[in-house]
Amino acid sequence: MKIMEEMQELFDFLNKLMESGEYARLKEELNSEQPANVAEYFEELTAEKQLFVFRLLTKDMAAEVFSYMDSDTQEHIVHSITDREVRNIVDEMFLDDTVDFLEEAPANLVKKILRNTDAETRKLINRFLNYPENSAGSLMTIEFVRLHSSMTVGNAMKQIKRTGTDKETIYTCYVIDDQRKLIGVVPLRTLICAADDNTIDELMQDDVVSVLTTDDQEEVANIFKKYNWMALPVTDTEGRLVGIITVDDIVDVIEQETTEDMEKMAALIPSDEEYLKTPVMVLAKNRIVWLSVLMISGTLSSFVIGHFNSLLEVAVVLSGFIPIITGTGGNAGSQASTMIIRGMALGEIEIRDALKVVWKEIRVGVLCGVALGLINILKMTLVNRDTGFWINFSVSLSMAAVVVLAKTIGCLLPILAKSLKLDPAMMAGPLISTVVDAVALVIYFSIATALVL
Amino acid sequence: MKIMEEMQELFDFLNKLMESGEYARLKEELNSEQPANVAEYFEELTAEKQLFVFRLLTKDMAAEVFSYMDSDTQEHIVHSITDREVRNIVDEMFLDDTVDFLEEAPANLVKKILRNTDAETRKLINRFLNYPENSAGSLMTIEFVRLHSSMTVGNAMKQIKRTGTDKETIYTCYVIDDQRKLIGVVPLRTLICAADDNTIDELMQDDVVSVLTTDDQEEVANIFKKYNWMALPVTDTEGRLVGIITVDDIVDVIEQETTEDMEKMAALIPSDEEYLKTPVMVLAKNRIVWLSVLMISGTLSSFVIGHFNSLLEVAVVLSGFIPIITGTGGNAGSQASTMIIRGMALGEIEIRDALKVVWKEIRVGVLCGVALGLINILKMTLVNRDTGFWINFSVSLSMAAVVVLAKTIGCLLPILAKSLKLDPAMMAGPLISTVVDAVALVIYFSIATALVL
Repeated sequence: MKIMEEMQELFDFLNKLMESGEYARLKEELNSEQPANVAEYFEELTAEKQLFVFRLLTKDMAAEVFSYMDSDTQEHIVHSITDREVRNIVDEMFLDDTVDFLEEAPANLVKKILRNTDAETRKLINRFLNYPENSAGSLMTIEFVRLHSSMTVGNAMKQIKRTGTDKETIYTCYVIDDQRKLIGVVPLRTLICAADDNTIDELMQDDVVSVLTTDDQEEVANIFKKYNWMALPVTDTEGRLVGIITVDDIVDVIEQETTEDMEKMAALIPSDEEYLKTPVMVLAKNRIVWLSVLMISGTLSSFVIGHFNSLLEVAVVLSGFIPIITGTGGNAGSQASTMIIRGMALGEIEIRDALKVVWKEIRVGVLCGVALGLINILKMTLVNRDTGFWINFSVSLSMAAVVVLAKTIGCLLPILAKSLKLDPAMMAGPLISTVVDAVALVIYFSIATALVL
Repeated sequence: MKIMEEMQELFDFLNKLMESGEYARLKEELNSEQPANVAEYFEELTAEKQLFVFRLLTKDMAAEVFSYMDSDTQEHIVHSITDREVRNIVDEMFLDDTVDFLEEAPANLVKKILRNTDAETRKLINRFLNYPENSAGSLMTIEFVRLHSSMTVGNAMKQIKRTGTDKETIYTCYVIDDQRKLIGVVPLRTLICAADDNTIDELMQDDVVSVLTTDDQEEVANIFKKYNWMALPVTDTEGRLVGIITVDDIVDVIEQETTEDMEKMAALIPSDEEYLKTPVMVLAKNRIVWLSVLMISGTLSSFVIGHFNSLLEVAVVLSGFIPIITGTGGNAGSQASTMIIRGMALGEIEIRDALKVVWKEIRVGVLCGVALGLINILKMTLVNRDTGFWINFSVSLSMAAVVVLAKTIGCLLPILAKSLKLDPAMMAGPLISTVVDAVALVIYFSIATALVL
């Protein structure tokens, strides 16, 4: 909140400078502001003003601000500026930011970018664009510090001093041999605290954890979470160092992976795009598949009820408690499955814990079931005055049994999915509810048949 | 997976060394391994062997490994070692790691730690323990580089070289005035690339974004996500610099906040503890509250059905489609609410977007509703042969209407919650389903009354 208000103040101030024509002052303010804030300011501007403001930025600043912009604004800018200006931005930007833009951009803008890069960069960009989506290769940056093991600390520091401003990070340095193979890592902190005539060889750690360009980003994120590192080297299959991944990119990966999990858990086909920018047709498509699968599976419940039609004809009042029983069952099951799915995503629960988990859920289920059964019989006695004791008792007993069963199903299905190498996130609320519905109805009507008829 | 196998190999190797009594070799291997890996190894060991292995570690390594251990192992170690060993660990650990341990530890271990720290540290620890849970104060570290604006780069680098190994990070340095007020920030990269006789004053950025010790960790995480920084300074209400937060702690915060959201979305009272370590009674307690609230709200559905009892007595077959209609409505609503809740958590959707969102969901709802209605009438014609056309048509028409309505309710409730300053995550699947159930039944029975009776 505080931050949002401060941003509004900044925008108002910049707008005032623009309106009163104080362009020199505006230019000065823009170029001394945080690039991320200036990028946010662009979202407030009309297309015409965006271009005007963009041209007030210095070369460095323009490239930095560009890398923070949302893709719509980026596309508008690249579309409007001259080839020469494009060249300036691409020269200044880190390669991975350029690639991020190209991955989303329409063909004509990709062409405009590529014809304004030199042959060397174009080759690199093409290699990047070929890495599989969500792989370590597509995340990495190639602007990092490479050292040789025979260098002295003095020489290494001179090299870093000379080239440091063009690197994404200088704080972790990687050591390669003559075949460009990764052989060690040395934090800048170690170099700074060491004597100038030490060699890199003496200081580097040679037991380096690295990932392959083709490794999945989720695996990369897990390594960062475990070791609390700031950067991780990426090699090709021959062990040659080709890039590094920095922790700030991992923050985005974690958010993206969690969003994906949440979407799967709500029976949605996951999508990388922002909600407000996704067309209605795409949103509908991503939802219809699971909605129909679940609706058709729900036919099972119709069959169960159909089977007990004669019971319902005698005691139609029983049908009034169908939603409350299936609903509570679904909720109880989702609670269990959500905890298990999240626990597995965070690496806290493994397949080998299955028995422990089930035993835990059965006990939790009994506690919840008994509590809900008691609350329900109390509620029905007070509220549903036209039902008799046996109906109230049947509903409450069913409630208790359904909760225990729902908890068991809810914890089992995600574990089962994982052991079949499926994504456990699929086994969440919607699917659990559909499965539990049919089982719950069998329990409910069987108990009612025994007690009420 | 790959990582897990490599870890298993490492553990097997270490176990073999232990069994064959090659303790010198074991000691050497342990002390050259990644601290996070050694901490993981402890979880595989018996309590007795844990102590033995711990005593093979050097002072530095012992402290590092300790900070990566889970709390059970930490408690066992502190419980078993001598006061002198405790002193060694606490001396070497970063203060925030010590505090993290103390926050969870039982009273007798807290005492054992505190009697082995000097008065100065004890005072600091107590101040830390007083910061509200999940505040910036409870996240920050006090081991960072403080510079004065009048210093030259050469002097600053000498200071960093001398004290650098005791700091959590040296890569972002903070500039304070004589009252310890934060007046600037300078990345180490700038110092390294600058000439020795430059002053800090000339190089520092004086427009520093900082947070207060009492600010919520979620706000802190949002700042990191926006600016891609590695560290953020924390001040007291007078603007005095008291600590910094580093990005690796933010990764944990993001995971914790998302877990909380997911738990709320599944009608659970959120808890910080790992599933397998949470007692059954606590799990049950965290679930019963919402389960009973939702069950009691479900009474509304019973009333709706009760109201239409005369319809059901004539056409009991209609009751067979109650679960499929309420279920589909619930699923359609959860899909919408999940997208909105997540979009708001990521800052992509604001309250001011409400109209845009509703209009979008209505269109998505119509597309999904029509599709599901058509699929349903086809399915019922093929599968439910004993129902007539008008029943099939009523169910399908209701299905379509319910989906549109569920989407609208599903997107509206989270926005409403946010504008009432409640947590939107509450308005997810379970609550949406309960609300949609009653509405869906009214639609279904009204349509059936008109068409079937």
